[in-house]
Parts: sequence; structure tokens; C-alpha cells
Amino acid sequence: MNNDINYKDLYNKYLNSFEEHLENYINSFENQVLLEPLKYIMTGKGKRIRPMLVIFSNLAVGGKTEEAMNCAIALEMLHNFTLAHDDIMDQSPLRRGKETIYKKWDEATAILLGDIMIGLAFALLPTHDKSSNNERIFTRFNSALIEVCQGQALDMQFEQEKSITLDEYLKMIELKTAMLIEASSCIGGLSGYGTKAEINSLIRYGKALGLAFQIQDDLLDATAEIEKFGKRVGQDLLDGKKTFLILTAEKIAQNEEDRELIDEFFNNKGVKEEDIPKMLEMYERLGVFEEAEKEIDNYTEKAKDSIKNITENVGKNMLYWIADLLNKRKK
Amino acid sequence: MNNDINYKDLYNKYLNSFEEHLENYINSFENQVLLEPLKYIMTGKGKRIRPMLVIFSNLAVGGKTEEAMNCAIALEMLHNFTLAHDDIMDQSPLRRGKETIYKKWDEATAILLGDIMIGLAFALLPTHDKSSNNERIFTRFNSALIEVCQGQALDMQFEQEKSITLDEYLKMIELKTAMLIEASSCIGGLSGYGTKAEINSLIRYGKALGLAFQIQDDLLDATAEIEKFGKRVGQDLLDGKKTFLILTAEKIAQNEEDRELIDEFFNNKGVKEEDIPKMLEMYERLGVFEEAEKEIDNYTEKAKDSIKNITENVGKNMLYWIADLLNKRKK
Repeated sequence: MNNDINYKDLYNKYLNSFEEHLENYINSFENQVLLEPLKYIMTGKGKRIRPMLVIFSNLAVGGKTEEAMNCAIALEMLHNFTLAHDDIMDQSPLRRGKETIYKKWDEATAILLGDIMIGLAFALLPTHDKSSNNERIFTRFNSALIEVCQGQALDMQFEQEKSITLDEYLKMIELKTAMLIEASSCIGGLSGYGTKAEINSLIRYGKALGLAFQIQDDLLDATAEIEKFGKRVGQDLLDGKKTFLILTAEKIAQNEEDRELIDEFFNNKGVKEEDIPKMLEMYERLGVFEEAEKEIDNYTEKAKDSIKNITENVGKNMLYWIADLLNKRKK
Repeated sequence: MNNDINYKDLYNKYLNSFEEHLENYINSFENQVLLEPLKYIMTGKGKRIRPMLVIFSNLAVGGKTEEAMNCAIALEMLHNFTLAHDDIMDQSPLRRGKETIYKKWDEATAILLGDIMIGLAFALLPTHDKSSNNERIFTRFNSALIEVCQGQALDMQFEQEKSITLDEYLKMIELKTAMLIEASSCIGGLSGYGTKAEINSLIRYGKALGLAFQIQDDLLDATAEIEKFGKRVGQDLLDGKKTFLILTAEKIAQNEEDRELIDEFFNNKGVKEEDIPKMLEMYERLGVFEEAEKEIDNYTEKAKDSIKNITENVGKNMLYWIADLLNKRKK
């Protein structure tokens, strides 16, 4: 793990291979109405965390990358289906500085695109090899679909409630965010015919990584440099989103002024733009950012610790590297 | 096939059994936000054509009903997912006289409900029996999901075009409507371990039946008694929907006045309410209704003819009876 540049090169090598497979796959899709929206949503310069986790989890258990590639595309497809639909539900016009599907086209297109992406994703899962883990891959993949929806439902329910506890929040992001990341490492391992112990390790890895990822997302919303993050700083505060930060502040805050500020946030479902600096100052003063960083570090360590029993190899080292990469990410 | 009342009783017996299984299934679903919408969309007094086709196709190949029951629920679930999403895409406030999901709740709920219903439907498909037809059931089911979306995309594309041909229309309803009905009879047969010849017969049966069903739907829109149909007569004319009727009229019409009327329909994407009687009179005079009835009869006979090689039994007779039932339906 000393030579960081090698891991980055390796990541990019597999990433390029994934992008190539994805491009070929998308170009084989025939639909006059949906091809352009599909290309638009699936093309990006992202880290492709989920498919990369599929590929490196496959590698970690000694699998062959070609067995993982279609599953990797399926996971990225399922992830992007959730974005297409969530952006309508949340009425978000932008994602990472780009117009969202329903804004660039219309709601009907965004709904239908998401729907067909579920079908396309399922069709990418392996079916014809009798001796394989196909059924377990299917079941895990479909559970991820269901649980992501359950997480979104919980998110919608929490929006109606004045406040929620930190535990309720963690339960929600476990479903809404972590489940797909957990499914990625699990399915990667299954596609490589990992042992039961290896699969369980990969599941725990993915879950912890997913939680670290979401808390990091909450933190970056308040601290990121705007040009890197692709949206304005403090957007969650404007939107009244119940994040790790505000729920931690609520737990810590003692003095009356802070409590009033937090109460106002919950009562008005967000703060006015001019109050953002005041909120950020409070977060800073109360140690909310450090608390978040501590949690992210904890979950990152938990993720890495989960796979310690997997035999050392390049796949496992890449999983360690990815955990650190996400921990350090600035956007 | 002489004693019609027995078939009706038998249909109702299996229908009641299906409703009971469905109710138990729905009551086991836990989600504070989505349970009520799920109950609302899945509860009705309909004929439940798709699940009944699963059950009787299973019976026709000598299967056991309990093997078909979860597939039957899955098909009804997939059908209702399409309704929840289509109603948003078409902005339809009512379906069969009842408020649609997005109207009664909101768009976010209707989108998320449809999404989770896909997952729930997949989870109902058989998985754990190694010797079974599980993979073929899964593949057929997922193809139905994809093709239904392709059909909806084609429908959206056709909305943008001034006119389409009758053949293009048939291709579209083959995907959008017939595919799920075809999947129902096919999956019913697979769940009962039918022979290859039996499954192929059931596929052809379902496809022909689905086409008969959709053309009947188009016909009923113009001819049904309003209280039975649950929506106003001529709604498709108001909406500018390109149906079997208008496309047949376009093919047949010779005199200038008729051609102008049809042109106006296509140019203005529909007619005004006061012009509906004029359109219906034209349909009548041109023999469009008879043409539709002839096509419905043709497809009905084709459906019945498709399964003639299946050994006579009560399941097969029920499939005949359902074909006639749909042919004669008034709503």
C-alpha cells in the first residue's frame, strides 16, 4: 500500500475497461425516445464507485473480471435509475452541475427511463450457468432495489416529521445509500465464486463503506469548495434536509441561541440563505464537523477491518485503497 | 363448453382464491408510506385477467395452482406498476372512475410505489427449486418489463408524430399491452412445467388475446355504456389518442368531408367535445366498428386456435372461456 500512484493507475485501468464495456452496451440499446436520455444519464466522469466495487470484490475473491463486468454495469444502471426518479421526487433541477433528466427532457421521459433501466439492469445479471451463484446474485440485486425504495419512502416520511433521531437517520441511509454499495461488493464476490466467509466480509465492508460515504456527502455539502462539489455549499440547510450534521448539532447544542437556531431549521424546514454562515459557524463551534469526520473514519476503518481475513491480493488492496479514497474525497 | 355457468363459477372460485392470497401478501408488506397506496392500487373488483391467465395456463399443462399463485400475484403487480406510472405520464386523474395514485397522493408516491412494486414482483418469482423453470420465468418476466417500457416509449414517440400506420399501431400495442398478457400465459405454463410445444402454444395464445383485448378497449371507448366503462365515451377522441378506430377510418375514408374531419383530428391532436357525435357517426357509416369487431374476432379465434394441440382439460377450457369472455366484454 506504499505506492499510491500504482493503485490509482490500476483503478483507472479497470475504470477505462468498464467505461468501454458500458459504452458498447449502451450503443447496443435501441430506442428512439430513450437512447439519448440513457446515454446522458450513464455518461459521466465519476468515480463509478459501485461498478468498481463489483470488479475489485470479484478480484479480491480470485474471480475473473469478465464475469463481473455485466454485474458492474447492472449496479451502475440501478444506481442511475434511482437518480432519475429521485430527482423528480425531490424536484432537483441540477445534479453535479448538470441538468437532471426530467428538467432536460420531461417527467414522463425520466419516469420511463428509470423503469426500463431496472429491466435492463436485471437482464445484465447472469442466468445461463447452472452451477453459478445466479440466484443469490438475483436475490441480492432485487433486495437492493426494494430496500432502496424503502429507504426513499423513509426519507419521504421523515420529511413530514419535525425532527428525527440520529439512529433513525442512520437506518434510513443504510437503506437508501448503503444498500446499493453493499450489494455491489456482495455481488462482485458472488460473481467471483467467493467463499461464504468472503461474501460475508464483503457485505460488511460495503455496508460500512456506504455509511461512511453518505456521512461524507453530508459533510461535504457544508464544507466543500463549490466548484469541486458541483452544487452550492449549504444546499442541505436551504432544503431543510435532515442530515448527520444537523441531527448531531441537535444532540450537542446546549446554549439557548444555538437551540433556537436549530429549532428554527426544523420548524421552517430549512434556513434562509443569509443564515447559512451562522449555521456553519455553529457547526464549527460545536465540533459537528469533527464528529462527522470521526464517524466517517470509524466506518472507513470498520469497512477495512471487515475484509482483513480475505487473503492478501491486488483486489483486496484496491478495496482498502477505495475506502481511503472515499474518506479523503473532496466532492 | 355447453354449461357456461360452471365456467363462470370455476373462474370465480379461482378468482376468490387469488384475491385471498393477494390480500395476505399485501398485509405482510411493511411500509408506513407505501402500504395504503399499494392496497389502493391492488384492490379492485376487476377480472384480474393476467393472474387468471397464469393460473389457468398452469392448469392447462397439468400444473399445481399453488406453484402458480405467486407468479400470478407478480404479474398483477407488474401490470399495476405500469398503471401507476402511466397515469402520471399521461396525466390521467381517473382510472375506472377512481382517482389515480398520483392524484390521490402525489407524484413522488406514485413513482416510488411503482418502483417498489417492480422489486416486490420480482421477489415473488420462484428461486429456490433447482430443477425448475425459474430462469425462464425470470427472463420472460423481465422481458415483459422491458418491452412494456419500449411500448410506452413508442406510444410517446407516436404522440409526437402527426399520424402513424395501422401496422405501427399494432407493433406498439403488441409491446405495450399484449406483452404482459403473453407473459402471463407463458409463465403460467412454465410454472406448471409444460412441454416446449405447450409453452409455445400458450405464448401465441397470450399474444393474440392481448391484441384482441387492446382493440376491444379502443372499440369500447367509442361504444360502451358510460356507467359500465367508468370513463366518458369518446375520451380517446378528445385526447387525440391514435387508436385502431381512427387509423382504420383514415385507411377507409374516401369522401372529402370525412378526410377533413380525420385530418383535423390529427392536426389538432384530438377533437372538441361537440364534434364527438360527428366522429362516431363517421365511424359507424364507414364500417369502422365492424372492422374492429372483425379484428377482435380474428385475434380471439387465433388465440383459441393456438392452444388446440394442448390436451383437453379444465384449464384449457377455461382459456377458451376467457377468450370468449373478453370478446364479449362490455367494459
